[in-house]
Parts: sequence; structure tokens; C-alpha cells
Amino acid sequence: MVDIAMIEAARVRLSGRARRTPLLSSPFLDEIAGRRLFVKAECLQHTGSFKFRGGWSAISALEPEARSRGVIAFSSGNHAQGVALAARMHGIPCVIIMPSDAPKLKIDNTRAFGGEVVLYDRASGNRDEIGARLSAERGLTLIRPYDEPMVIAGQATTGLEIADQAREENIEAADVLVPCGGGGLTSGIALALEARAPSMRVRPCEPQGFDDATRSLASGQIERNATLQGSVCDAIITPQPGTITFPIMQRLCGPGLVVSDDEAMEAVALAFTRLKLVVEPGGAVALAAALFRRDEIAGDTVIAVASGGNVDDEVFLRSLNR
Amino acid sequence: MVDIAMIEAARVRLSGRARRTPLLSSPFLDEIAGRRLFVKAECLQHTGSFKFRGGWSAISALEPEARSRGVIAFSSGNHAQGVALAARMHGIPCVIIMPSDAPKLKIDNTRAFGGEVVLYDRASGNRDEIGARLSAERGLTLIRPYDEPMVIAGQATTGLEIADQAREENIEAADVLVPCGGGGLTSGIALALEARAPSMRVRPCEPQGFDDATRSLASGQIERNATLQGSVCDAIITPQPGTITFPIMQRLCGPGLVVSDDEAMEAVALAFTRLKLVVEPGGAVALAAALFRRDEIAGDTVIAVASGGNVDDEVFLRSLNR
Repeated sequence: MVDIAMIEAARVRLSGRARRTPLLSSPFLDEIAGRRLFVKAECLQHTGSFKFRGGWSAISALEPEARSRGVIAFSSGNHAQGVALAARMHGIPCVIIMPSDAPKLKIDNTRAFGGEVVLYDRASGNRDEIGARLSAERGLTLIRPYDEPMVIAGQATTGLEIADQAREENIEAADVLVPCGGGGLTSGIALALEARAPSMRVRPCEPQGFDDATRSLASGQIERNATLQGSVCDAIITPQPGTITFPIMQRLCGPGLVVSDDEAMEAVALAFTRLKLVVEPGGAVALAAALFRRDEIAGDTVIAVASGGNVDDEVFLRSLNR
Repeated sequence: MVDIAMIEAARVRLSGRARRTPLLSSPFLDEIAGRRLFVKAECLQHTGSFKFRGGWSAISALEPEARSRGVIAFSSGNHAQGVALAARMHGIPCVIIMPSDAPKLKIDNTRAFGGEVVLYDRASGNRDEIGARLSAERGLTLIRPYDEPMVIAGQATTGLEIADQAREENIEAADVLVPCGGGGLTSGIALALEARAPSMRVRPCEPQGFDDATRSLASGQIERNATLQGSVCDAIITPQPGTITFPIMQRLCGPGLVVSDDEAMEAVALAFTRLKLVVEPGGAVALAAALFRRDEIAGDTVIAVASGGNVDDEVFLRSLNR
């Protein structure tokens, strides 16, 4: 359903649009991790997260007529911003359905990028129903956040860059740790590395209590989270792995890694001090796993994706004040 | 004394050692700046500032025998870290003379990078005398922070990258704003752009009350700062422009730009929110000038160098809490 040809085609469409984000490192972090640690700084992507890649990939792949009617997306925030900016750059309408408790910064930014924001209550509302209704009414194309081949192909371009950058750094084999929500980024990177750097192994990373992907990989079937609220890592909380993404992860990924909110916050602080990067807690779970789960990781080199940086001031201050 | 051949040679020596730092942007910052604004994120360089380039350039250019005896440097912090890491990567001894009131993070990091730190009192001590004595006693080569051709050639590689990246972004002409202390980075970038992107014009940027370069350019002779203390932009406070760097700046640079500490702190906060970058106040003066001195800048595009990110937690928190 998603193959390397689609991913390479997405790379061509994204060329000159998405940033090739740098692979960073620090001797201080190497010491904590107990091995060489490289951080793929995807928080420096347009709109502050990898989601711009998927948004651009999906919109640029639409037929011109459908594209001109516009797109719709539902998102806790980063997907919203990525789709909104990609839509604005294409000059097309864009409706974003967001939970009313999403970080204010993300709601404001989505509006500033030109998205028409429709809020719903995370506990009582059904975002899929709202999305389907608006989509039908206005002829908008729904851009799913992860269970959508063209979105996965876009996120997968992160993996093509990791393969290239690993070669530049003479990295031969490594666990590649990826923050995992619905699994779009994780499965995409896994597909790209399968084709371009098969000695790398992707490991999904999640916050404690919201480890649906880790449990699903362990049991061999899709497992759900008991709740969707209560983690500071809000950006990567989803009900369960996607129906497209899970089989890919099952085929290609190593076991999941789970970190506490406190460890994610410590990783946010270390990215600030040692990498000069702003990473949001959900985007820092892979870095946290690299730093604080060293015994669960194999090899002399590990690569962690820092997937987003859209953190409210208050949460960021809390990470530094710990 | 420094020419494009030396700068190109430095680029070859730095290849695979220094990072090619990205050129970032945000539509939110474009709006404040009133034009397209690109930020050269040199805070993502090894050791968190451009100083690693000059340190590596100078040490790698030494004769092997002199190099093996080791190096010595004096610095308020960023030069110290750059030289210390470059020395450690070369496997040679390194003494760093630092003011006793330098940020604790910078002192700690310099030691962690393997530098032997010698502290002196900024008000009563003479760092040049201390440096000359230790240099003579141990046969160490003094690596000056800016008035040193090989250091300038190293910093100038930032300018070669800006020329390449501007071409990739289809930027034809622009003011290039550079945080200016002694002028090593400013004069180096100016020399690189003279040769590789002559339609660009470098403008030194400084904090209010410590605008020695700006006043020197205006008067046509080297002017001194009245005091060396009292700015949050400590990283770029020097007594006066260098005797090597000033004539280069005089020949190639446009008028200086001066911002308040408060504007520098606002730029730190905006780099956090909009670019996901950690920039120290001194490293943010060029970004501040791009944002808050729009009437003093010409053209539809401006490039600002974010030269360093080694900021103490407390100062950073203050910038977000403003």
C-alpha cells in the first residue's frame, strides 16, 4: 500500500518545500546514553514538526480539481499546522477540526497559517463524524493524520534523510527511535530504512500509560489505550495504532520503548542545554528512551527522532525548573 | 592578511568536522520583520556557537610540533568551548583563561570538554598578560578570539555556507546581520561574501551601550566601550574592534545596528516560539535588529546570524517570562 517508489516520489514533491533537518549530537548526551547518540532535529521542520511533510505530500498528490475544493483534517495540533501551511502554500481552502483542550499555541498557529478551525470536545465529540459531515458538505478532501498512504509516504522522507545522513556519519547499524502516536512517522521511516538502510531497526517510543503501539507489537494485535488524557506528551496520544500503519510496524519494527512523563521532560531540558533545540515532551520520548533506556537498546550507535517542538511556554519552563 | 584562498582552505580543513548549520525561517517572523527573514542557526554548531569553526581552523593550521605542545585561549565562554573541543578532538593540551564571572554553564562545559580552566577577575586582571606568561612557560600557542587570521578564516566559513544557502533559496541580494564582538565572525563573513556573494552586505549588530563597532565604523577610527559589564549580551562584549578585523569591516560592512537588551531578550523568546531554537541574548542581537530595526534595513530579504545558544536557564526563563 506504501512502497519505496511512493516514498521517493514524495521526496521529489517535497524537494525545495520541506527542510532537510540536521542530525545533531553532543558529547554530553553520548555519555548519558552510553553510546553515540544522534538526534534527527525534525522540530526544525516548517510548522515545528514532521507533520508538514505528510501534509505537503498528501495535498500535492491530489488531482487538481479535488485539490482546488480544499482539504479538511482533524488533529491535536501538529498535523493541523502542517496541513494548514501546506494548504496555504497551495492556495487552497483548509478546515481543521481540533479538540477544544489543544494547546493554545497550536490553535492560534493553525489559524495564523490560514486554517479555519472547528473545535470539538475530546471526551464527548466524535471527530470522525464531524470530519465526514463537513467533508461531504463542502467537497473537501479529508487528510487523515496517519492512516493515509500519501501521508505515510511524506513522513517517510524523514527516513530517506536519516539513511543519507547516517552514511555521511559512517553509521553502519543503529536502532532508530521514533516518537509514535498513530504510527505514520514510525511506519514511514521503517519503510524508507528497509529499502535504503536495512541494517537500521526502527523502535516506536511512547509515554507510560499510552503505550498502545508497544503493547500491540508485543501481543501481535491492535491494543487500545485505556484513556486519551493525562500525559504531558499530548502530541502523540492516539486511541490505537492505525490499521495501515500497524501491519507495517509489525513487519519491520523492533520492540517499543516506554518512558515516563518525567523522563520526557528531562529530555526536553537536555535538548535545550546540550543541543540548543526546543522539543515538545511528546517529541522528546525517543530522545528520552535513548538516554534513559540504554539497557533496552543494542549497538554502539542510536538515532533518536525529535519529532516536534510546539510546546507551550508554561510546560517548557516546567521542564527547566524541575 | 585573510583572503578567500585561506577561507576556502579552512573550509576544507573543517569539512566533516564543523556542521553545516541550517538556514531557517518562519512566516511569523517575516511578518514582524516586514520582509523575508532567514536565520543562519549557528547556535546548532558544535559547542553551541560559531567559535568551534575558528578554534578548529586555527589548531588544524598549526605545524604538528607546535600543535602537540598545546594551545591556550582567553574567552568569556564561547571561544573557550570551541577551542577546548577542537583541542580535545586533536588530542592536544588546552588551557583556557576565563573571567571569574562568566556564566557557570560555560565554565563547566569548558572543563567538560577537557580544557584546563584558569579564572581571572574581569575588573582587576589583565588577561593578555596572564595568557602571555602561561604561553611562554609551557610552549602553548595562543589562539586569539578574533584578531587572528586563521580564526577569522574559520569563522568566515559561515559566510561561504550563507552564500551557498542563499543561492538555494534564490536570494539575490540581502543585508546579512551579524552579532559583533571583536569582529572575527563579522569580518570573516564579509570577506567570504565579498568573494562569493558580492550583492550581500554585512551589517554588524551590537547591544546598546556596547556599540564600539558601530561607533568605530561611523567615526572611521577604533572607538572603545566605556565599560565591559552590565549587558545580558555578555558573549559579545569586547573592549573594542580588533586591529585586524576593523579595517576589513571598514572596507566591506554597512552601518552597524544597535538593539536594547530588552529587544535581544524578545528575539530570544521569538526564536524559541517560532524557530524552535535556543539562542543566547548576545547571539540574538542580529535577529533582534532584523525584527525591530526594519526601517534601518534595505531590500526585501534579510539574513540574520544566530551566533550562539549557550544561555543559562535563569536568563532563558527570564526571556520567556517577559
